[in-house]
Amino acid sequence: MQLTITVINGIPEVQAGNDLPGLIMAGCAATGLALQERDILVVTQKVVSKAEGCLLDLRTVEPSPFALEFARQWGKDPRQVEVVLRESVRIVRMDKGVIITETRQGLVCANAGVDASNVPGKHIVSLLPRDPDASAARIRQVLREKTGVDVPVIISDSFGRTWRNGIINVAIGISGLQALIDYRGTDDPHGYRMSATVIAVADELASAAELVMGKVEACPVALIRGYDYTPTRGTARELVIDPERDMFR
Amino acid sequence: MQLTITVINGIPEVQAGNDLPGLIMAGCAATGLALQERDILVVTQKVVSKAEGCLLDLRTVEPSPFALEFARQWGKDPRQVEVVLRESVRIVRMDKGVIITETRQGLVCANAGVDASNVPGKHIVSLLPRDPDASAARIRQVLREKTGVDVPVIISDSFGRTWRNGIINVAIGISGLQALIDYRGTDDPHGYRMSATVIAVADELASAAELVMGKVEACPVALIRGYDYTPTRGTARELVIDPERDMFR
Repeated sequence: MQLTITVINGIPEVQAGNDLPGLIMAGCAATGLALQERDILVVTQKVVSKAEGCLLDLRTVEPSPFALEFARQWGKDPRQVEVVLRESVRIVRMDKGVIITETRQGLVCANAGVDASNVPGKHIVSLLPRDPDASAARIRQVLREKTGVDVPVIISDSFGRTWRNGIINVAIGISGLQALIDYRGTDDPHGYRMSATVIAVADELASAAELVMGKVEACPVALIRGYDYTPTRGTARELVIDPERDMFR
Repeated sequence: MQLTITVINGIPEVQAGNDLPGLIMAGCAATGLALQERDILVVTQKVVSKAEGCLLDLRTVEPSPFALEFARQWGKDPRQVEVVLRESVRIVRMDKGVIITETRQGLVCANAGVDASNVPGKHIVSLLPRDPDASAARIRQVLREKTGVDVPVIISDSFGRTWRNGIINVAIGISGLQALIDYRGTDDPHGYRMSATVIAVADELASAAELVMGKVEACPVALIRGYDYTPTRGTARELVIDPERDMFR
């Protein structure tokens, strides 16, 4: 089994209202690639947020006393802290200047995905797409209408991890493939019944795509060819542990 | 930029004392691949542990009263709980039948990497290699001696995550490449990396390799070609957050 991961070149700086599927198609053409059945597209959250206009001018934000106090204590921008709180439904951890929350989208991550990097304008922050699964589904649908090829789409974002340094890409929105592969109940080659082996393949696909995207070069789309995925509607919600079962929430 | 990930076929069931680099070379030949400069090999922990004889017969283990009590409460094998405790230097969390510890290797993971799957014999469990960086360095060195090609080696294992369902492959041992890439040259002093500066590329490479290895098919080696890594001695220790900076330990 072999898979190839190719960065899609030629995607320009994305603006609110831009036709992202059209930009992806043009990028594929510029890269010399035609979409094929069984391909998978990985698109970074940042360009999806930009295309959907999920940007906020911090000069319009009035920080609460709680945000002001945390920002003062840790040397943060109180308006940005305020936006993080507004984008969240629950604080998971708030320490050492870091805010880990459950976001309105149901994700658990640092700063609710509010990010000042790779956005034009120093007062502008990007927010996560309102419904990343729906964002993925829209891109997939438009590409299917325009090309006749049905390609699963993963919206990726880079998350920190507990206990481990560095960030890695994970899937925050999915359309067209299974997020998890469940080997529970299948036997390994020695006849051992695997009881706890569910692989988060959508996260692994997002991480694999990051390897060709880089951060500085700002290549927000990658195409994965040769991965034998399980087609289904798909949702990134499956990747988040239920609060009732969560040992760290 | 394009990278290809190829599963290495023809690796037989590995036994204690087996020449793992030799098996990898034979596997590459069977797959029709010759190692090239700038390739990266990802090898699963399980075959490294087997080759190094890091297996334990549970019938030789006398569980402590503490292990007996936890095992009784959660329906676990008390001997396996005992082995998990012996492989650990610190308990990070012990709840819902799950034991998350800091292992003797300095990793933080569930069950200290003690695993009954994919091992021959129902009383046998595999332990993590004693020094996974050294295991990676030995494989790399022997391959360099035999082929003349210096190929970085990553030892991978599948870890669960906080807040997210499913396991993904991460790097627990490294030789020959940088574990982290710091794109902005700045080092965040906080335990949880909140700005998108440092990418855990070794973990992403391990995850990418998992996509071709699968679990049931038992293909323990993959070759990644086309990734522009930074050559260095390398260590997976860089991937673990210092206890002093850790918000979850």
